[in-house]
Amino acid sequence: MTAPLLNDSFLRACLRQPTEHTPVWLMRQAGRYLPEYCATRARAGSFMGLATNVDYATEVTLQPLERYPLDAAILFSDILTVPDAMGLGLSFAQGEGPRFAHPLRDEGAIRALAVPDLAKLRYVFDAVGSIRRALNGRVPLIGFSGSPWTLACYMVEGGGSDDYRLVKTLMYSRPELMHHILAVNADAVAAYLNAQIDAGAQAVMVFDSWGGVLADGAFQAFSLAYTRRVLAQLKREAGGQRVPAIVFTKGGGPWLDEIADSGADVVGLDWTVNLTQARARVGARVALQGNLDPNVLFAPPQAIQAEACKVLDAFGPPQRADGGWDGHIFNLGHGISQYTPPEHVSALVEAVHAHSRTLRQRPHTTNGA
Amino acid sequence: MTAPLLNDSFLRACLRQPTEHTPVWLMRQAGRYLPEYCATRARAGSFMGLATNVDYATEVTLQPLERYPLDAAILFSDILTVPDAMGLGLSFAQGEGPRFAHPLRDEGAIRALAVPDLAKLRYVFDAVGSIRRALNGRVPLIGFSGSPWTLACYMVEGGGSDDYRLVKTLMYSRPELMHHILAVNADAVAAYLNAQIDAGAQAVMVFDSWGGVLADGAFQAFSLAYTRRVLAQLKREAGGQRVPAIVFTKGGGPWLDEIADSGADVVGLDWTVNLTQARARVGARVALQGNLDPNVLFAPPQAIQAEACKVLDAFGPPQRADGGWDGHIFNLGHGISQYTPPEHVSALVEAVHAHSRTLRQRPHTTNGA
Repeated sequence: MTAPLLNDSFLRACLRQPTEHTPVWLMRQAGRYLPEYCATRARAGSFMGLATNVDYATEVTLQPLERYPLDAAILFSDILTVPDAMGLGLSFAQGEGPRFAHPLRDEGAIRALAVPDLAKLRYVFDAVGSIRRALNGRVPLIGFSGSPWTLACYMVEGGGSDDYRLVKTLMYSRPELMHHILAVNADAVAAYLNAQIDAGAQAVMVFDSWGGVLADGAFQAFSLAYTRRVLAQLKREAGGQRVPAIVFTKGGGPWLDEIADSGADVVGLDWTVNLTQARARVGARVALQGNLDPNVLFAPPQAIQAEACKVLDAFGPPQRADGGWDGHIFNLGHGISQYTPPEHVSALVEAVHAHSRTLRQRPHTTNGA
Repeated sequence: MTAPLLNDSFLRACLRQPTEHTPVWLMRQAGRYLPEYCATRARAGSFMGLATNVDYATEVTLQPLERYPLDAAILFSDILTVPDAMGLGLSFAQGEGPRFAHPLRDEGAIRALAVPDLAKLRYVFDAVGSIRRALNGRVPLIGFSGSPWTLACYMVEGGGSDDYRLVKTLMYSRPELMHHILAVNADAVAAYLNAQIDAGAQAVMVFDSWGGVLADGAFQAFSLAYTRRVLAQLKREAGGQRVPAIVFTKGGGPWLDEIADSGADVVGLDWTVNLTQARARVGARVALQGNLDPNVLFAPPQAIQAEACKVLDAFGPPQRADGGWDGHIFNLGHGISQYTPPEHVSALVEAVHAHSRTLRQRPHTTNGA
């Protein structure tokens, strides 16, 4: 038995239903900018030690909710757990990004790739259940995975990259091998997200962090087609509730219309996108999530509040002139920086809640309608 | 006395005049992928040793033209020569990006910033004159600079950056200081480009390499406004010839219309932009330059040719159904990688010339009109 949801504003906004304020959560909200997170991570010894331990993962997931009145929690994990379960050997060196011990560099390894035994990812599903119990209905819990393309970038490059030379060389030279990786990734991600939903995730998000490095045409063929393949396989309901699916393509502004038609309930946007225009184009089909530049959080609180209001004003009052509602979830356009002063996050969350309530009192406009 | 121009296809395309083929040049075409460049650089001892020596700069500028039938030469220099002349102390450590010894980190240093004495940049203007003589009319010579915003990124960060934290903190916290830097940069860049034109540059390009990291709204206020300020001050004619101005904003796709209205003759595009749509939107106002992903050059020649044809086909035949011409200059959407096999560049240039000639024989379509 799970407790009833006390604050469902996030889920309602995802489904373009009325809310009293604009819900807000922050990508990477459980992270290194919080001293309590750093303390737990030190006890865990390593990032993977933290992510694979149910108690630690639960603890850090809830830390930002103790500080700020955020409207959603997101599972503490990494986008690369699936390829790790495929046997690529994920690790995080101190102060560096992810590394795979066994990147995909030859045809044999690529042909041998298969959807992993989900039992290897049990630590994730156990964490989802544990976090749901710890949340006790405060806010909904978001599960997530990297997108098939984004996983493939790391799997081929072996880690982060400046130029994506190896993965793009494979893509342009041996597209059939690339498609094989992506098909396996898509089926694995779908199974992984469905297991998170079974374990209690109330929404799921696909992070296409590197979709935006692709050329027009290649994005549709090598990234979006496989995100669609994930979405088509997802359970969209659990316990009688719709489980919204969010797709976030960093740098995906040029393909907003196509992403909005992918089957997602919500499209995440980075800060380069004009939210007024985005709502006018796709707001009747999907909710929008975003899109403050995380660097705004280095400015003084007054400037943070002004920039947050600009984002809310750009979307406009979510209720349309015709009485229906469009959906906006406030977020950053990228993960929060480790250098963010924690008290600045308070200023942001307060401003979003306060200004979005004010905005709902304004007379209807045609903004975004 | 300068020799008459034997191949003016680049200049004609910039001005949306008829050409027999689509002209092609490559950003960073004189660079580390060429063994002869590496040999000259080794003799020069350092990057700045190369850039500040007129004979070396002339030699490496012409190297790619000896190998490939490119339709334009671009001055060998760096986008950061102007802040170096302002006293910030530019250097390039082996295998690393640019570094400033004296980045702008306090209000005093920012307030003291001024347009530099152009005599400090005489090595650039001397190189322009020397290259023009060496080219002897083969193809036109492009001069260039970083944009005011892009220069400011490096000047504040002190080098490259992953997150632009320092420069964005300044921008969001002390916008008036940021505007001061940008105004000085704009006036300095304009004077610098005008001096290049006086020395013989037949076109100029403003590289807004980091404009795309800005949020919608911030881009217009902190990048595009100052690119406009540069363009408004430029000499647009020399020796009775129009001197086209090219603006390239990496990641600038979301703001294509506004960039096209900046006063530029040509807008450079990266590979995320759909060239058919871009032409339909702004092709009647400006020529377009781009937009192949440089990673295509790691694929086998046949795949390179296919991708080059896709780019040319996306723009379509430059002559419109009404008999007028739109302009397309083929280029990469970013500088060529140092790992590019030189023979692959031959395949690209040949494909562009051959296919663009074929395209001109096709019956007119409404594509892009």
